[in-house]
Amino acid sequence: MKQGKRIKGVLAPVVTPFNTDLSPDPERFIAHCRWLLSQHCGLAAFGTNSEANSLSINERMALLDALAAADLDTSRMMPGTGCCALTDSVRLTEHAVKLGCAGVLMLPPFYYKGVSDDGLYRNFAEIIERVGDARLRIYLYHIPPVAVIGISPSLVERLLKAYPTAIAGMKDSSGNWNNTKTMLDAFAKSGFDVFAGSESFLLANMRNGGAGCISATANVNPAAIDKLYREWRDGNADEQQAALNVVRDAFGKKYTMIPALKQAVAHFGGDPQWATVRPPLDSLTKAQAASLIAELKQIGFTMPGLKEMRAHKAAA
Amino acid sequence: MKQGKRIKGVLAPVVTPFNTDLSPDPERFIAHCRWLLSQHCGLAAFGTNSEANSLSINERMALLDALAAADLDTSRMMPGTGCCALTDSVRLTEHAVKLGCAGVLMLPPFYYKGVSDDGLYRNFAEIIERVGDARLRIYLYHIPPVAVIGISPSLVERLLKAYPTAIAGMKDSSGNWNNTKTMLDAFAKSGFDVFAGSESFLLANMRNGGAGCISATANVNPAAIDKLYREWRDGNADEQQAALNVVRDAFGKKYTMIPALKQAVAHFGGDPQWATVRPPLDSLTKAQAASLIAELKQIGFTMPGLKEMRAHKAAA
Repeated sequence: MKQGKRIKGVLAPVVTPFNTDLSPDPERFIAHCRWLLSQHCGLAAFGTNSEANSLSINERMALLDALAAADLDTSRMMPGTGCCALTDSVRLTEHAVKLGCAGVLMLPPFYYKGVSDDGLYRNFAEIIERVGDARLRIYLYHIPPVAVIGISPSLVERLLKAYPTAIAGMKDSSGNWNNTKTMLDAFAKSGFDVFAGSESFLLANMRNGGAGCISATANVNPAAIDKLYREWRDGNADEQQAALNVVRDAFGKKYTMIPALKQAVAHFGGDPQWATVRPPLDSLTKAQAASLIAELKQIGFTMPGLKEMRAHKAAA
Repeated sequence: MKQGKRIKGVLAPVVTPFNTDLSPDPERFIAHCRWLLSQHCGLAAFGTNSEANSLSINERMALLDALAAADLDTSRMMPGTGCCALTDSVRLTEHAVKLGCAGVLMLPPFYYKGVSDDGLYRNFAEIIERVGDARLRIYLYHIPPVAVIGISPSLVERLLKAYPTAIAGMKDSSGNWNNTKTMLDAFAKSGFDVFAGSESFLLANMRNGGAGCISATANVNPAAIDKLYREWRDGNADEQQAALNVVRDAFGKKYTMIPALKQAVAHFGGDPQWATVRPPLDSLTKAQAASLIAELKQIGFTMPGLKEMRAHKAAA
């Protein structure tokens, strides 16, 4: 990570491939990450859509090590490092900083409910103090539909005041544009980078001073999302946004997002193993998988170059 | 653990003591566990009230090792071992079984919301298969107010059918007696041990075929709760239940349970360090602490023998 030059644009919460025994598969992971980088998509590995919370700390560290060992550019990475246990968050965050990651995407501790902003503040402050590295850039992860515990504007304000360098931005996955707008209006001008949690809000986010988006469907549609990120000032931006929405809806409206993304990677990459998810998630049924793929073909969806980049096959 | 002889009665989700640097303190932990055992209270270490989800896997394993190394009776222990990540649940569960614990209290994976009973079934089934030890006894942990993800009767039925020995019972912390009654009516006769998640339901649970309770306030009021467990058939059982409720209400009605429990242990054990909680939880304010202690004194509450058992002091 270079100080002063922050990561921006489009990032994917990279889906995590599993072997038949449900162990993570570093080779397939590296191959998918390479493909995403080739599409100008950054790597928010270990996000919600990565099934990160279904992975142990050691499994996450090993996968990140595998990316670094394969010479993937860590300055394009923002791995998720926020855990329920303070000590786990510190360990993962330290590891990411040492590997030169651009930043970390940090969930609040999410088991205990009804906790105070004071308690959440102390969690983040302890992590920053314990990591104690000037290179640390934290992107607060607000996703109340899943984590239940969220990040309020007053918490952001307090953290920014105490740690103006370490607190670099946030991902807003509330699904509520008004919340994203509130964050943008309050903090974007001071250099706080707000990423929309879905490309559905990418254009609106860019028009209001946002930094990009970190979105599930960037795993499958990265080039088109990146194009809108680069061309949001162009006359056809609204049309581009509408086209992105069609693809997103094909995944998320009728299907559970994570298995649907993996089904698409499996199909368009010609690698059925990719459809595997870890419990407690379910794969799509055969009927669901077939109708998803049929619907994607109907809207002309493809994943160009994916098959060619199946390095795990090439290496075998 | 002895096969055929299941753990029953009253257990405490043992509160976890922290040093000033927020590291867990094994000496204070051992001392509190010794006191609980001396009050005939079993040890459901690493429950919700233990701040277990604020501890890393290694921290939990080290604390359990410390109890075993101090020769505390593992056949009186039911540590919490259910994590978001399957591999973590397996690791903790294996460790508990190897140490001879009576059973394990198992949360469902709680990050992903809206998951199916199929997905939860596969989570528990994978854990049982991977641990692969005939001594394993799982107590399913139903606590939707905190974990959000719960354990439905149909999931219990399916698990019991597939794993009648490993699935030994449940803790119902729904706070909803109708749910406990449903579980009792459906499964208690077949030897499935239902523990109420609070002593408020202890008498009702025993009258309907339950196995006891695993309750926050067993950390501070174990002898009286155990007395009702042993004497629930006696004529004064309703009076005993009413007296237990007064104590529970003194903790839980006006104060957040975990810091209130720790405040009481700190006060009645004469050891202020015990009041420390890990983020994201907050300790009671000074004013809250003072009024809690005043109210406890007013109802004649004490913790007999606690001060005398402060082994960490004696050892120093």
